[in-house]
Parts: sequence; structure tokens; C-alpha cells
Amino acid sequence: MLEPDKLTLNIPDTTKPRVVIIGGGFGGINLAKKLSNDDFQVVMFDRQNYHGFWPLLYQVATAGLEPDAIAEPLRKMFGNDDYPDFHFRLVRVTGVNPAAKTVETIIGDLPYDYIVIATGTKSNYFGNEQIKKYSFPLKEVPHALNLRSQLLQAFEQASMTVDPEVRQALLNIVIVGGGPTGVELAGALAEMRKHVLPTDYSGIDFSRMNIYLVEGLDRVLPPMSAEASEKTYKYLNELGVIMKLNTLVESYDGETAVLKGGEEIKTNTLIWAAGVSGALIDGLPAESVERGRILVNQYNQVLGFQDIFAIGDIAFMKSDEYPRGHPGVAQPAIQQGKLLAKNLKRIIRNEPLEPFIYNDKGSLAIIGRNKAVADLPKNMHFGGFFAWFIWLFVHVMSLVGFRNKLVVLSNWFYKFFTYENSTRLIIRPFVRKGERVKRRFINKYDTD
Amino acid sequence: MLEPDKLTLNIPDTTKPRVVIIGGGFGGINLAKKLSNDDFQVVMFDRQNYHGFWPLLYQVATAGLEPDAIAEPLRKMFGNDDYPDFHFRLVRVTGVNPAAKTVETIIGDLPYDYIVIATGTKSNYFGNEQIKKYSFPLKEVPHALNLRSQLLQAFEQASMTVDPEVRQALLNIVIVGGGPTGVELAGALAEMRKHVLPTDYSGIDFSRMNIYLVEGLDRVLPPMSAEASEKTYKYLNELGVIMKLNTLVESYDGETAVLKGGEEIKTNTLIWAAGVSGALIDGLPAESVERGRILVNQYNQVLGFQDIFAIGDIAFMKSDEYPRGHPGVAQPAIQQGKLLAKNLKRIIRNEPLEPFIYNDKGSLAIIGRNKAVADLPKNMHFGGFFAWFIWLFVHVMSLVGFRNKLVVLSNWFYKFFTYENSTRLIIRPFVRKGERVKRRFINKYDTD
Repeated sequence: MLEPDKLTLNIPDTTKPRVVIIGGGFGGINLAKKLSNDDFQVVMFDRQNYHGFWPLLYQVATAGLEPDAIAEPLRKMFGNDDYPDFHFRLVRVTGVNPAAKTVETIIGDLPYDYIVIATGTKSNYFGNEQIKKYSFPLKEVPHALNLRSQLLQAFEQASMTVDPEVRQALLNIVIVGGGPTGVELAGALAEMRKHVLPTDYSGIDFSRMNIYLVEGLDRVLPPMSAEASEKTYKYLNELGVIMKLNTLVESYDGETAVLKGGEEIKTNTLIWAAGVSGALIDGLPAESVERGRILVNQYNQVLGFQDIFAIGDIAFMKSDEYPRGHPGVAQPAIQQGKLLAKNLKRIIRNEPLEPFIYNDKGSLAIIGRNKAVADLPKNMHFGGFFAWFIWLFVHVMSLVGFRNKLVVLSNWFYKFFTYENSTRLIIRPFVRKGERVKRRFINKYDTD
Repeated sequence: MLEPDKLTLNIPDTTKPRVVIIGGGFGGINLAKKLSNDDFQVVMFDRQNYHGFWPLLYQVATAGLEPDAIAEPLRKMFGNDDYPDFHFRLVRVTGVNPAAKTVETIIGDLPYDYIVIATGTKSNYFGNEQIKKYSFPLKEVPHALNLRSQLLQAFEQASMTVDPEVRQALLNIVIVGGGPTGVELAGALAEMRKHVLPTDYSGIDFSRMNIYLVEGLDRVLPPMSAEASEKTYKYLNELGVIMKLNTLVESYDGETAVLKGGEEIKTNTLIWAAGVSGALIDGLPAESVERGRILVNQYNQVLGFQDIFAIGDIAFMKSDEYPRGHPGVAQPAIQQGKLLAKNLKRIIRNEPLEPFIYNDKGSLAIIGRNKAVADLPKNMHFGGFFAWFIWLFVHVMSLVGFRNKLVVLSNWFYKFFTYENSTRLIIRPFVRKGERVKRRFINKYDTD
């Protein structure tokens, strides 16, 4: 592809106020949808050309869904007549310059009237470069495809060894992090161990396949209620997942995971779902950033600025009810995006702004084939099949396109009745010959 | 992943005759399906873990389908009780040793009783290393995903340049080879130019997007009838595809394609669909190979051997009716695979073998949204919507799994009524950090 010096942002001049949105996640797309193009010119930068429904990414990794079922091209969402002054650019943002009122990218700067940082999070390896190098993250579509190939390739290789130690390392899967991603992944793998893999790999004794779920705190699903954690522990235990609570992974060299305390697990596949930190961009003063997130007031204005906003996971809005900010899930991002659209309209009309109040709609996690846990408002907690049904409904309804809803739903029904993970294709990503993968169009808030 | 020295083929010993099938294409799977595991132990080697329905690969490249719609995992096909003595190994075959009666792989040798070479073809660059390096092939799933990302990224970049020359090179797509792949790809791109791209990239003037189809012979679709070629030319012409017949590409350096005669086309995307040659393996005497294919008798026995067979595209079976061998399409491979299963059974029962007689069921090619050309037996030739309907029916019926049929069919209906190519995701393959892509598990008959 082209060198950056041959490119330019090429955004049309405008007399309308220009809103620059960095990131096409839940916050960014809900903001852009509600921003009338009569009032604003809207520019969106992202390093991917699609919006992803990340709560289902583990399904891509476990061969249940193909990426198109959980991702929607941003240009498809905003390429219609409802958004005549919306401009998407697939480009890496390097920073913001509040003095010059420009946003900086690798192919040039763009003056803004309002800038909205909606960059989300990236994997946090807590400074452990070795784990970063050898572990498999699960934050993006290519990660999921790569993990899928890795898992299937490990089973292929396990069928081609007579050395019990080599085989055991291939059959040990270590998931680090007992949050929703880790829990849902562990459940999906445990189901595959029961229903799909023994048929596919008849030469392998799958009672020897170990799924470890390592969590630093004293319970799985720490963001959810104690009831949900207990039920989840019980369900995963029934599925045969080996949970190690109060346990940290100290090192991993691609072959051996060393846990705090000294226990060692030989494994070729260590999946890192242990933590995230904000995907920051340059140019904000240090006092606007705390614990890797951007401090905002109740209008999502970044501390010290009137025209710079942050929404979603990257935003740190302290309140009495949420002294450590809102949970890192889709709903705060969606609600902040929608409210900010209203507030930007109020700003240009010199009307008073509306403060953000989080409407907690509850949390859900799926465990295996037909169980889930749900924390709903008013202290309602569900488990089992009913929660699974809620989970299915909520997730399918939240998917973006009508087509995606259909694909996911039909895949589920198919899987539910056939126990099949249908997309078991090993498609190891590979680079074009003679060319290194170009990461230059990937935003600064890249997770790698 | 593991070093080859830690692995072994690990095929169970058997008293039954062992048939080793190299390649899970149309020939290989149809042979394996019909080979009763009561009579034979069946071992299949492939460098991919799936069987692909390659006639639809261009749809993956043009964002119409995801890979799982056209590919079926081999272990899923043969992992059930009907095939108790079937053994798949994802491994690279290096050769055959007829003297020792072993097949050689990078992780060890395996004795065979019968070996069937069903390795198909690889891209043929006619020795031009520069074109091989810079062009985009379209023979495998990763190729198609890479080409899809390339095409979409070119449009993204075209929206980020004000230099007319740079933009034109991004908007010029050169397809080399006017066979079915080239023709169907050109048609699909021409439809995208009309219906999808102008909405997605409103800043780009798509009347400037040029789709070139370069063919060395004097007509497109040279394997089909003159009527089909004429109709195809007419349909593609109506779709605005620029066809250059009797034209060869002399060189391509990633920026400029030089045609024979001196004409130059600036392009960032040159797609190589110009030719294939047999994916040979080592160990056969030179006299068994002609024009890159393996000479076989009418029982698909390789010249000079009783127990080595070749079927499908790699096999060169001369006959009065087909002095240059059978056409390189699915049907000869399917029919030879089925017949060989019968003949292997006859061999172990000392019965006389049945010679192969090709039953030509006709050829089809689709052009754009709702046109196709069909050559049917008894000199029947169709064009237009009716041929398109036949094409759709035949291709959907030929797909392997019930689920695949459903996905493809529903995608088509969706696309037909909405003009949408729904999977427009740029998923540039990338490698795991700190690790080069391992090509060691890729068979010798790799196309790269």
C-alpha cells in the first residue's frame, strides 16, 4: 500500500461546526448516529473499517461464528442519505493539539471544533513483555481468527505426537483472567471438548484436555454480583474447567506458564484476557489522565477543556455512586454517546448541558451451551437456562444489522441442536510475500 | 507451534490395505467417501484442514461470502461413524518413494499399499518472479481474504488523496486471465462499482474506477464454447469491464503493469488468474510427468506403476476425445475419485478394472448480478438470467454441507434484493508478534 506522504485527510471544508470522533466503538457510533448532519460535520477516524460487537468475539475464536456476523462496516452504517456530511477515514491518530485545535494523524492534521475521544481500551500486560510476546490476546477480529487457528492447530499436532509431555502441553489451554471474556471462552471450550472435538479427533483422549481459568481475585466474574460469581463457578466446575482463584501468572515463555507460588503449567496456548487499560492518545495534560483513563466531568468534557470530550471505556467519570468510574461494558458507552449528541446540539444553541446519569440495565454472561448468569437492576439475579435465554435475546437484539441478527440466531439454533461449531477452519493469517504487515494505518491505540 | 522433530504421523498399524490420499480437493474427498473402511485404512494428508468449494472463492474476495460458507472442515466430513478407519493429518508431503513404498512427509515416512495423488494445481507465473512477488493470487482462502482487504484498503486510500495519478492507480484493478475466475471476479467488481462502492465512498468518482481483464487468447472464457465467450464478452462490456484480448502482461513492479506491445497501466492491485500448473510431488520418474501433470492410464494409474494413482487436475489422461486431458474443473476430479474407489475395491478382489469415461455435465460461469453463460451437453448453450438461475442451482447444490447451502443461498437472496456485499471487513492478515508465519505445515504443492 501507499506511503503516508502520498495521502492526505481530504476532508471537505465546512461552515458547520466539525465534530471529530476518534473510534467507531459503541460510544462513537451511537454519538455519530444521533448527530444531525444539518448541524454538524462529523469526521470519524478508526484503524478498523468496521464496528465490532465484541461481547461475541469469543464465538469467533471458538469457531462458532465468522467475523461478518459480529462486525458491521462503518461505511455501511453511515454511508446512506441520513448522513450526508459524515466522513470516515481509516487512519492512525497520533494525538490532539488543544492549542492549535487540531487532531493529528500520520497523514496530516485536521482542525476541529469538537473532538470526542472514544478509543476504548487495549490489552494490559502490566509491563510483562514476555507474556505480551507469547500470549494470545482476544480484543480484535484478527486476534480471534488467530486464536481459532491456534487452538485447532494444537489439536492437529496433538494427534501427531506419541510423546505424552508434548501432547499434554498441546492439550493444556490456559486462560488468564476470569472476567466475562475468560469465563465465556472457558465455557465454550469446555462444550467443544464434550461435543465437537472427540468426533473430530478420535485419536485424542480428550479427558486429558485441561482448560485452566486463572483469576487474580477471589472469584470469577468479579464485576458481577456474588450470586452470579457463585453460580458461574458452579457451572464452570460442572463443565470441568479448572479454576485457580487468587492466582497470578508470573511468566510465560511460550512453553511454560509459571503461576505465583511456583506452580508450572506446560502449555502451547496461553490466552490473555486479564486486563485492559485505556487506549490513550497524546497531547492531553498529565492531570487529565488517571489510572490510564481520561478524567471527564458529568458532561463527558475532559478535565480542563470545553471542546474535548471522552466517552465510553476511555472516560473516567467519578461520581458518588461510581467512585471508580462506570463499568467497562457497552451500556455506559452507548448512553454517553447518545447524550453527548444531545449536549453538542445544546452547546451550539447555548443551552445548558444535561449531566450523565448511568442507567444500569444489568450484566449477563453465558457459560457453555445453555447456561448463563444475569444481574438485573433492582437486585434481581438469575442463573441457568432462563438467564441464557435472556442473554441470547439481549445479545442478538444488540447486534447492529438485520442480517447479522439473522446469521447469529440461525447459527445458534444450528449449534444448539447439532452441537456443531461449524466454522472450524484453520486460516492462519499470513502476510503477502515480500511485504511486512503494514501497521502504519493502525491507530496509536492499537492493542499490540 | 512445534518443531517437526517433535511430531510423528502416528497412524495406527493395520492389516487392511492402506490407501494414502494426498489432497482433500474434489477428487480426494469423493474417493475417501466411497472407500469402505471395512476394506481399507484411509489416510488423507492436506496442508489445509478443510475442503474448499473454489468456484465460489471469488465471492469471498469480493466481500460476498465468508470462508465458512464455501469451506467444510475435512474432519467434520470424515469424523463420523461411517469412517472409523479414516485418518487425517495436517502435514506437508515432500514426496513418494516407490522403491520403499513409502510416502514422505516432513515429520516422517508412511508405508502405503496404494497412494493417490490428488494435489490439484498451483498458480503458474510462467517463471516471472516479479509478478509472483507483487500480484495477488486467488487460489486459496487466505488469498481471497487478503485480496478483499487489499481492494477495500485501496478505496479507503483513494478517498485520502488529492493527487489524480495516485488516485487513479488505486482505482485501477487489473485482472490477468480471462478464465472463469477472472470473468466472475470482473463481473462481481463491476457490480460493486455500480451498487455498493458509490454509497460507501461518496467522495470518490467511481466512473474513474477501471476494471481491466487481460487475456492472452483471442476470447474470454477460452475453455467454453464460442457462443458462451461471445455472450460473456457482451455482458462484461455492458458492465463496463475493459477487456484486452490477445494481450499478455510482461511485467508488474507493484505500481505499473506493462502489457506486451508497451501499453502501461498504473495499478496498486494486479490479480493473477492467468494460469495454473500441476502441484507435483517429488519421487516420480521424469517420464511420468508431461506439461506439469502426471500421466495416467484410463484407470488413473500413474505411468509405470500399479499402486500409484493420480486423479483430478494433476492427472493427465490422454484419450481420443480429450487429447490434452480433461478440463481443469470439478467434474473430472469428482468422477475419477468415485471410480477409483470402485477400482481399488476391484484390485483387492482381483477383478478387472473399469476404465474412466468422462461424463461432461457442462460448464457454467456467472457474470455480474444476474447473468450467466452455460454450455450444456448436446451442444446446448444458454445465456442471461436463465443460465444464471442454473448456475445458482448447480453451485448451491454442489456445496458440501446443508448449513453451507443455507448460508450461501440466504446471502444470495439478501444480496440480490439489497445489492449489498455484506462482509466488507478489512481484516488484513497479520502474524503473531515475534513469530514468522510458519509455512512448514504447508504442503510442497503450495501455490506460493
